[in-house]
Amino acid sequence: MTTLETIRVGLGARSYDVVVGSAGLARAGELIAPLLKRARVAIVTDETVAGLHLKTLGAALDGAGIAHEAIVLPPGEQTKSFVHLEKVCRTLLAARLERGDLVIALGGGVIGDLVGLAAGLVRRGMGFVQIPTTLLAQVDSSVGGKTAINAPEGKNLIGLFHQPRLVIADIDVLATLPERELKAGYAEVVKYGLIGDAGFFDWLDGAGARLLRGDTAALTRAVATSVRAKAGVVERDETETGERALLNLGHTFGHALEAATGFSNRLLHGEGVAIGMKLAFDLSAALGACDGQVPGRVATHFARIGLPWRLADIPGARPPTDELLHHMAQDKKVEAGRLTFILAHGIGDAFIAKDVDAEAVRRVLDTAE
Amino acid sequence: MTTLETIRVGLGARSYDVVVGSAGLARAGELIAPLLKRARVAIVTDETVAGLHLKTLGAALDGAGIAHEAIVLPPGEQTKSFVHLEKVCRTLLAARLERGDLVIALGGGVIGDLVGLAAGLVRRGMGFVQIPTTLLAQVDSSVGGKTAINAPEGKNLIGLFHQPRLVIADIDVLATLPERELKAGYAEVVKYGLIGDAGFFDWLDGAGARLLRGDTAALTRAVATSVRAKAGVVERDETETGERALLNLGHTFGHALEAATGFSNRLLHGEGVAIGMKLAFDLSAALGACDGQVPGRVATHFARIGLPWRLADIPGARPPTDELLHHMAQDKKVEAGRLTFILAHGIGDAFIAKDVDAEAVRRVLDTAE
Repeated sequence: MTTLETIRVGLGARSYDVVVGSAGLARAGELIAPLLKRARVAIVTDETVAGLHLKTLGAALDGAGIAHEAIVLPPGEQTKSFVHLEKVCRTLLAARLERGDLVIALGGGVIGDLVGLAAGLVRRGMGFVQIPTTLLAQVDSSVGGKTAINAPEGKNLIGLFHQPRLVIADIDVLATLPERELKAGYAEVVKYGLIGDAGFFDWLDGAGARLLRGDTAALTRAVATSVRAKAGVVERDETETGERALLNLGHTFGHALEAATGFSNRLLHGEGVAIGMKLAFDLSAALGACDGQVPGRVATHFARIGLPWRLADIPGARPPTDELLHHMAQDKKVEAGRLTFILAHGIGDAFIAKDVDAEAVRRVLDTAE
Repeated sequence: MTTLETIRVGLGARSYDVVVGSAGLARAGELIAPLLKRARVAIVTDETVAGLHLKTLGAALDGAGIAHEAIVLPPGEQTKSFVHLEKVCRTLLAARLERGDLVIALGGGVIGDLVGLAAGLVRRGMGFVQIPTTLLAQVDSSVGGKTAINAPEGKNLIGLFHQPRLVIADIDVLATLPERELKAGYAEVVKYGLIGDAGFFDWLDGAGARLLRGDTAALTRAVATSVRAKAGVVERDETETGERALLNLGHTFGHALEAATGFSNRLLHGEGVAIGMKLAFDLSAALGACDGQVPGRVATHFARIGLPWRLADIPGARPPTDELLHHMAQDKKVEAGRLTFILAHGIGDAFIAKDVDAEAVRRVLDTAE
């Protein structure tokens, strides 16, 4: 049996473990059992993930004597909606799950965000376990308790903070991911290097290609390093009153790009973040915060890995600058009408800039490749 | 200008004032202004309340230079639904309200519960102000941060804890309440006496009739005493892990009665609570927790005031015991299948009983008047 690495997210009474490594899914029963008041859970997943991993999870729960029933939703970002939120809440209520019971979110960020929100709302808060099945969800959305659905007005605009009771990041399940999705998730891994760990970025610059070919050791190291970085930020600023905003590096641009492309297959979240991070470094350079050579280093890394980093890398017509600025103005991180961005003094040295001039942003967008 | 009494709800960073007295609505502008980052709010209310009080509130906000727009919803319990939750959330987003802005809930418990939930969800939490316009909302739902909508599976089953930034309990607006609603709210006032303040119950036994005729001094004292009692409980147990459950005296029975009568005009919430409190004392006596004479004292008070206290006081067919037991089993307060009730050793001496035998409950319901 392989060893699982355990990272504690220390939040007082809301503390929990993130377990990273091989074969985590097969050991889900023994990992979850100690958290249960009675041997019964619900699982929420999507059709794609159900076909790949539900049987393994079911067997693991059976092995620990835990009864389970599954709610299987359509795959895709459209599932992060009021309609599906209501469906999940009502199914959990109809199953007579109680406050002390757990619901398991088995899937990517869509399932994790939706189920976390439903768990936060049912009976004013029941417990949930994250079993993220994408690299993106393992290193980002499954840790830290941000939950949400989308609104037509913007992504993730309706949600709450509700911490999971346990996160199981099984490296083996990443082998079932399409290459494009693995790469998109990798953008969030690089983010931790760009925000605060230049050494990690350097390591990724060498190990990234191997990692994306599925090397288990490299993936485990990358996920564990990312989760440790995120756990530290979340411990210091759970509800994003300050430092946690750093994790939004590339996300203000990225969300606007996702909105402009209709949250469609044209641009995956991580792809938007990759282009967004390049734009954030462009903006940093344009505002004199960092050296003019730094955006090029970011671009070179993404290009070598095969991640999009230019607006021109988005298939179809280039999103108009005005439309992107409009979407940014709707961002949660707006304060009194001024734009907040995460900028950087260099690789591994990001900071929060609360008062960015919209004209500077416009020039960066107009002149970006 | 009359003096407003201010009661502080002490919850650390989430502390807030409850302001009780005459003409609070007319002074809403000056009370709210210090809480604002910019001079702009949204108001959510219902058609009935809009007709009575929206103009006064609008003038008060105008007087303080605060811009405002109103969302007016249909009146009634049916508004506590996913459909209206989505509508309020999306309207607040479309109005570009930000995390630091405030939304005002102007209305009874339905509006307060719905708006509090929407405020808790929009951008993962924006601020809100409660201006409760019913006695029930002033003494109960507007204080303490419980928010919710109903599900077909039961009342208040989907919600969260989100504290308001301010509560304005204007005694004058109670003059516009229909007598039946004022009486229903009065049941929650009596509750504070029955739970933990025998002296307050004795005072109400004398002053109740005067209060229900609209005596401002008696109403102010009753509301302020109730809010002080609730604030103390909420300060000691914000998220109902213990003592706060005492506030559910009469509510397990009451919710079941409301569900069995379809949350309709046949039985108002406070009427259900009145009958429910009488049944809770019946159950307490049946289980030997209190003297057999006590339920009669409770019944006598309600009868004198003109509040329903018997199952037979509910118009139409008597709700079947089996149906009531079914609804109770769906209650949020179920733990591992056992029924939790608030019982009492006497007037002013309630306690939490976690392990009540369903057969004892059945006998009380079968034999109740």
